[in-house]
Amino acid sequence: MKIMYDGTDFHGWQIQPNGVTVQECVEDTLKNLLNENITVTGCSRTDAGVHAREYFFNFFSDTKIPAERLPFAFNNRIFLSGGVCGGISALKAFDVPHDFNARFSSCGKRYVYKIHNSKIQNPFTSRYSWYFPYKLDISAMERAAKCFCGTYDFSAFMAAGGSQKTTVRTVKSLFVKGSEEWSDEIDITVEADAYLYNMVRIITGTLCEVGVGRIAPDEVLDIIKSCDRKRAGRTAPPEGLFLDRVFYPENIFVRSEKND
Amino acid sequence: MKIMYDGTDFHGWQIQPNGVTVQECVEDTLKNLLNENITVTGCSRTDAGVHAREYFFNFFSDTKIPAERLPFAFNNRIFLSGGVCGGISALKAFDVPHDFNARFSSCGKRYVYKIHNSKIQNPFTSRYSWYFPYKLDISAMERAAKCFCGTYDFSAFMAAGGSQKTTVRTVKSLFVKGSEEWSDEIDITVEADAYLYNMVRIITGTLCEVGVGRIAPDEVLDIIKSCDRKRAGRTAPPEGLFLDRVFYPENIFVRSEKND
Repeated sequence: MKIMYDGTDFHGWQIQPNGVTVQECVEDTLKNLLNENITVTGCSRTDAGVHAREYFFNFFSDTKIPAERLPFAFNNRIFLSGGVCGGISALKAFDVPHDFNARFSSCGKRYVYKIHNSKIQNPFTSRYSWYFPYKLDISAMERAAKCFCGTYDFSAFMAAGGSQKTTVRTVKSLFVKGSEEWSDEIDITVEADAYLYNMVRIITGTLCEVGVGRIAPDEVLDIIKSCDRKRAGRTAPPEGLFLDRVFYPENIFVRSEKND
Repeated sequence: MKIMYDGTDFHGWQIQPNGVTVQECVEDTLKNLLNENITVTGCSRTDAGVHAREYFFNFFSDTKIPAERLPFAFNNRIFLSGGVCGGISALKAFDVPHDFNARFSSCGKRYVYKIHNSKIQNPFTSRYSWYFPYKLDISAMERAAKCFCGTYDFSAFMAAGGSQKTTVRTVKSLFVKGSEEWSDEIDITVEADAYLYNMVRIITGTLCEVGVGRIAPDEVLDIIKSCDRKRAGRTAPPEGLFLDRVFYPENIFVRSEKND
C-alpha cells in the first residue's frame, strides 16, 4: 500500500509507547476495515516530524476486498475517525508476491529537504521547511554537494543510535536547487541506495555550514573520509525533510488496471 | 503594519474571551516590545480559521524605534514567545497620516478561496484548502462567476449576524481558475469594495453547487436578486479562505527607503 503523510503531529513511523505513530494509525485503521489483526512492514523508519510524499508498507490479509478498492475505504475510515490520523492519505494498493518486503525489496529512496531561506518567516511554509534566516551561498553548496556522490563510509553523517552492520552507502545524486538571489525556497534532493540514521539531515546541516562560509566546499570530502561525526554540521530539524520516492524493481507490483 | 498569518489555530482576528486571536497576539507582542499599552485597529474581522497573506492594522505609539525596524523586532519577539502566536509574521511597517484607519481607509480587498478537488485527500494542503471530492465543472462555475460582477444587494450571500447599514456591495471581479481535467487545485479570486459577513464563503459554496450541477449557471442572477439566503449554497469552510490583498489609495503610506 502506498500512502503519504504530514509528519508534523506524528512521533515517526514506528510504533512506540510515548506518542501516536503512523504505523499505529495504519494498523488500527486496517484492523477496523478488514476485521482481522494486521501487522504492517514499513519501507523506512522515518523520524518524528518527518513527512512522506510516498511511503510503502506491506501486510498479509485474508480479505476479499480487491486491492484497488482499499485506498478509498481506508481514507473514508481515517476521515471518520478524525484526530491525528487524519494526516495520512492512502494513494494506491497492490497485490504483491509473497516474499515482497517494503523495506528490503526497495532498491533506493529519494529524499527532499526543503529550506526556507529568507529574512522573514512564512507561517504557511513553516510546517514544511526549515526556516534559515542567514543568506546561503547556493553555488558553494552545489560544489560541496558533488563531493557526496559515490560509495563511502558515511559514518561522519550518522547520528548515534543506528544499528546497521555497515556504514557504507552509495549516494547516486545530490542536488541543491535555488537561486543566487535571496531565495525563498531551496531544495536539497538526495538519492541513495540506503541511508544511515539522520544522514540526510546531517548532510543538510553540513551543506548549510558551507552555505554560510563556515566550511569550505573542498573540505567536505575530507570530512567524509574522516568518519568523524564532530567535523560534520549540525542535524537539520525534521520539518524540512520529505521521503519523496521509494524505488522498487520494475514489475514487482501486480497492478490492477483500475489502480493505475 | 502589514502582517501575514496562518489562521488555523486562531479564533479569528478580533479579541474575544474564548480563544487566542490574532489581535491579542499582536497587541501583547507590541506592548512587550514598545513598553506601552497598544490598541490596534485591523483592516477586517477575519473569522476563525481564515488565513491572511496580507493584513494591515494601525496603532498610535510614542516609540522612537523607526517604523522600518519594527517588523524584525516584532518577529523576534513572536519567535521567542513560541506557541500559537508563531503563526503570525510581520512583513512591513509604515508611518501613516494621523487620520489613517486600516479598515476605513481601505478602498477594496481581494480574497482567494482554494479548493482541493480530487478523489484523494492531500494532508499537505488540507490546512490551506477545502477538500472537495466531487468533480467540479469549471466552465459552468466560470459562467456563474460572471453573474456576481456588479453592484447588487448581496444579502442572499450574507450569514446572519452582520450589522452593516447597507447590504449593497460592488464585486469588481470574480475568477475561477482550474482545468477541465480532475484538477487538484481550484482558486476562486474575488475583488470587491467591501464584503458582507461570510460573503466569499457563501459565494464559494454556491459556485460549488453550480460545479456539481445542482444549480444552473443562469440561476445565479435570480438568486442574487431574490435576496434569499436559503436559495444560495452552503457556507464553505474557513480553511480555504485567504485574505490576499488589501487596497489603499496610492501614496497613503510614508514609506521609508529601507522598508521597500
